[in-house]
Amino acid sequence: MNKSQLVEQIKIKKSFLCVGLDVDLEKIPPHLLKSEDPIFEFNKQIIDATHDLVVAYKPNTAFYEAYGIKGWESLEKTIDYINKNYPEVFTIADAKRGDIGNTSTRYAKAFFDDMQFDSVTVAPYMGSDSVEPFLAFTDKFTILLVLTSNKGGLDFQVLKDENGVTLYEKVLQESKSWKNSEQLMYVVGATRPEYFKKIRKIIPDSFILVPGVGAQGGSLQEVCKYGLNKEIGLLINSSRGIIYASSDKDFAVKAREKSLELQKEMGTILSSIK
Amino acid sequence: MNKSQLVEQIKIKKSFLCVGLDVDLEKIPPHLLKSEDPIFEFNKQIIDATHDLVVAYKPNTAFYEAYGIKGWESLEKTIDYINKNYPEVFTIADAKRGDIGNTSTRYAKAFFDDMQFDSVTVAPYMGSDSVEPFLAFTDKFTILLVLTSNKGGLDFQVLKDENGVTLYEKVLQESKSWKNSEQLMYVVGATRPEYFKKIRKIIPDSFILVPGVGAQGGSLQEVCKYGLNKEIGLLINSSRGIIYASSDKDFAVKAREKSLELQKEMGTILSSIK
Repeated sequence: MNKSQLVEQIKIKKSFLCVGLDVDLEKIPPHLLKSEDPIFEFNKQIIDATHDLVVAYKPNTAFYEAYGIKGWESLEKTIDYINKNYPEVFTIADAKRGDIGNTSTRYAKAFFDDMQFDSVTVAPYMGSDSVEPFLAFTDKFTILLVLTSNKGGLDFQVLKDENGVTLYEKVLQESKSWKNSEQLMYVVGATRPEYFKKIRKIIPDSFILVPGVGAQGGSLQEVCKYGLNKEIGLLINSSRGIIYASSDKDFAVKAREKSLELQKEMGTILSSIK
Repeated sequence: MNKSQLVEQIKIKKSFLCVGLDVDLEKIPPHLLKSEDPIFEFNKQIIDATHDLVVAYKPNTAFYEAYGIKGWESLEKTIDYINKNYPEVFTIADAKRGDIGNTSTRYAKAFFDDMQFDSVTVAPYMGSDSVEPFLAFTDKFTILLVLTSNKGGLDFQVLKDENGVTLYEKVLQESKSWKNSEQLMYVVGATRPEYFKKIRKIIPDSFILVPGVGAQGGSLQEVCKYGLNKEIGLLINSSRGIIYASSDKDFAVKAREKSLELQKEMGTILSSIK
């Protein structure tokens, strides 16, 4: 999926919502545990119930790796199911990978070639040659961590250099010079709305993936105030707030209701900027 | 395995060599491709041929993920094989993970509980609460990226703050205040020997995992000059230089020869500091 197709989908669905498929067997409705693949079954029902309200799904790989090979099978079945049934939905492997060049190529191959994700999240600490192997897949997107939603995100990301430039700003600036940088998107936590204005000055045109709305306390309105650009440019993620809206048999219905709430709020925001 | 057991093994084997099990099906001897699980078969023969000369094995997860579920099966079989047959060898999942708290716990569970690795490598960008979930496994080691061996490692890691402190130094300093920080080890590339002196001042007692000797051009002598401490404190990794010493049927014999060369060099260094 390319950028204009993604923007088109946002306009059609009046939504820039991303649902995080972070499945925890201790939190899903107990009746699903009897099915052959409870994780996939849970995802399938969430996806079927929400696909018309969301533009992206984002499984976090940690939740699948925690279940070993069975977890990886569930992840592969989930991405295959989305690609087969809802190819218009953008997919994000939230993997936060990054390694030396020949090794990053391996990760890129895993998520882009084998699993056919549209994008993968990547950590910047190891620099340009740890990210460019992902960017070499020019029909895919590489989503770089910039300013994360967790408390520890402030430990290093806002450290200032001699000229008063913070690390996260430096990451943004540097990344623009990397090969195929037009395929970059960025992760900025919803818990940091005050930073969006500055960030938009550095990357006015890029998409920003925004986790932290909902369970982590970020505000949609605040983020949109400074984060929206002329092509919308935001993907707002909610995970726990949607997928665990109910822990009973009505979990998919409740997930749809929570998605609808956010989609309506987004629809209002979108119509107000036209 | 605890720290004194690791030091004991180094003394017994007169070696602080770690072998990186980064298996590429295009590089392994063609005759292995006929076996049921070529990656595991390759690893098994390398391990059987080198276990008495090395103190650690380090599979990089990217090389396994690239082969999907089959790759994960090979990884699980490899770690099981080491733990069953050579429990005295320290194991490192070179995964470079890191995420918000509840998610990092998932990764920790995957590598420590399910696969029973002794340690895992972790990226620092997301700060304290992305690393502490790994450190919560107090019978395991968390190996933090500090100064990496790749060219891009210099993009951000050596940026200086207002007081002239570089990012990698800040990572080292901060990490010492994290909960269970005594379970930390650190990654410093062999291509950066000039930094070891400074690094040892900040973390005199910790183990440092040093990739980049061999194919990447780092020098063992240079690293040891400033990196060794009173408990040795170094694990020197070689991957390609050992496991691809031959691409023919003698690959395991040649891997042993290459390991022996390094082990002898290490033995000489160890005897000279006593």
